[in-house]
Order: sequence, then C-alpha cells, then structure tokens
Amino acid sequence: MSLTVAALVKTTVRRNLQILETLLDKAAAHAAAKNFDVGVLLGSRLAPDMFPLTRQIQLASDMGKGMAARLSGQKPPSFEDVETTLDELKQRLARTAAYVESIDDAAFDGAEQREVRVPTRTEEFVFGGQDYLVGFALPNFYFHVTAVYLILRHNGVELGKRDFLGAR
Amino acid sequence: MSLTVAALVKTTVRRNLQILETLLDKAAAHAAAKNFDVGVLLGSRLAPDMFPLTRQIQLASDMGKGMAARLSGQKPPSFEDVETTLDELKQRLARTAAYVESIDDAAFDGAEQREVRVPTRTEEFVFGGQDYLVGFALPNFYFHVTAVYLILRHNGVELGKRDFLGAR
Repeated sequence: MSLTVAALVKTTVRRNLQILETLLDKAAAHAAAKNFDVGVLLGSRLAPDMFPLTRQIQLASDMGKGMAARLSGQKPPSFEDVETTLDELKQRLARTAAYVESIDDAAFDGAEQREVRVPTRTEEFVFGGQDYLVGFALPNFYFHVTAVYLILRHNGVELGKRDFLGAR
Repeated sequence: MSLTVAALVKTTVRRNLQILETLLDKAAAHAAAKNFDVGVLLGSRLAPDMFPLTRQIQLASDMGKGMAARLSGQKPPSFEDVETTLDELKQRLARTAAYVESIDDAAFDGAEQREVRVPTRTEEFVFGGQDYLVGFALPNFYFHVTAVYLILRHNGVELGKRDFLGAR
C-alpha cells in the first residue's frame, strides 16, 4: 500500500467540510448567545478587498469538488453561488461532500500524470496532476478553510485548535 | 510512478517556505514605504488569544520540519524559538528548508504505515503515517502559512492570491 491520490483527496475534502460545518454551528451558537444575527459573521471579512465568510465557504466547496473532479477525470459540477443563509451554506457543504464521496477510488488511478486544466477569468492554467494537487489544489483548499476559521476567531467566536483539526 | 510521500512533503514544505520568505519581504517593503517598524507587523495577530506573526512563522517551521522528520523516521531537530527580527525569521525559514532538503527521498519509503508520535504539553498523539500526514501535518502546516498571509492582508499589506500560491 502506498499513498493514493484517492485517499488523500477524499479524506482531505471529507474532514475539512465536516470541520466547516462545525465552525458554522459554532458561529450560529455564538451569535445566538450574543443576540446578534449570524448573518453579520457570514458577511465578515479580514480585509476590505477580501471575500467574506460566505464566499470563503463557496470557494472551499469549489476547490474541494474541483480537486476531486479534475484528478478523477471528470468535469467539476457547477454549483450556483446563491447561498445567503447558514442553512444554505451547510447544504452546500453537504452537496459538495456527497459529490466527492460518489467518485469511485479507481477513477483517481494515474491522477499524478493526468493533464489538468483550470480556467480562470483571464487565462487557463495547465498542470500535470501532481503539480496541480500539491501546488494549487491543496493550498487553495486549505486557504479557504483556514480563512473561515480565522474570520470567526477574529470576530470573537470561541474556537480552539481542535476545531480546526477536527475530531480525531 | 505514483504520488510519493517524499515528493508531497518536500515539495509542499519547499514551496511554502519560499512563499513565507516572499511575504516577509513584502511586509518589510510595506513597512518601509509607510515609514513604520516592520516589528509592528511581526507582532500582529488576528485575535488577542492567537499567536502573532513571528510565532506563526516558527510554527510553520516546526510543522514543516516535523512532518518531514517524522515521516522519514527521524527525530525532528529542535530549533530554539528566539527570532525577533525579520532577518532572523528568514534564517529560520532557510534553516528549515535546508533540513528538509537534506533528507533522502528513500527515507520516506513506507511512511504511510510508519507509527508517528507527536508529543504535546498535555498528551502524546499516536498516528499511522497516512493519518498523521493527511489529518494533522498538512492542515497544521497550511494553517500557519495561511495565518501569516492573512495577518499581513488584515494589516493592509498589498498581497494578491499569487503571493499565497507562489511562483508557477
């Protein structure tokens, strides 16, 4: 047995989407305890020219499903970015997780060598599978997951390191 | 060829330490342009009960060398947390990178099954190598790298997404 891309990608996405769900629940509990609308937290950002929490969740979803799809030779499903409530964001996470889990492990065979194309607004990135995974997908995915955690911490939600690392 | 732990770990550490070095340089340039001591940024944090930037760099270093050492069957070298200046932090990054590069790829063979013990102040975690890598080392490492980026963005340093993803 060696490290497979299927195990790395599916486990990474699964556990971090679970962590995001927990973070959203803790945000809701904090807002309720302090008697303010959790929407304030969902709209919070760490800099005026950065995305707010809602968009960070959507981007974590996009990176998670994008990584799983592209490395298994599928076109990533397109999810409309229409979530405005905490429940809708949790549904987005669940939908993302269900998609990633639905991919057969065998579909990731040879992912290291697969050519991966990532279109952006201005250009198209072309990667080898391993470079895409290590140099683009994982850092981007973790960026958005960490941003959600840090937006909440910055706004006084009581979270510990275990809320980032998840259940063990 | 398949994804090897050696390639995943060494590439991840190398590229992110390079990114942190670039972030420190941009922090210094920002402070110089605005005529304040870069030490203000090194002491900045996103919440009163979170670590400041200097400590986030030290922890990224610890996670990087810890991940490489533990998965290659070595005891992580202990670096004293004594850095107070930007140059010292850059030296810490360089020292960490040199250590990780010094490990022979072959030492990572079988890392997925290696038992990994991580002592903390209060307990000792015991993992299988793959669980340690996917569920502890990578998320922790990316947490601290992302925290450095976000502390700087929050404090007005002009950084783009490419400063997080690094050169391609």
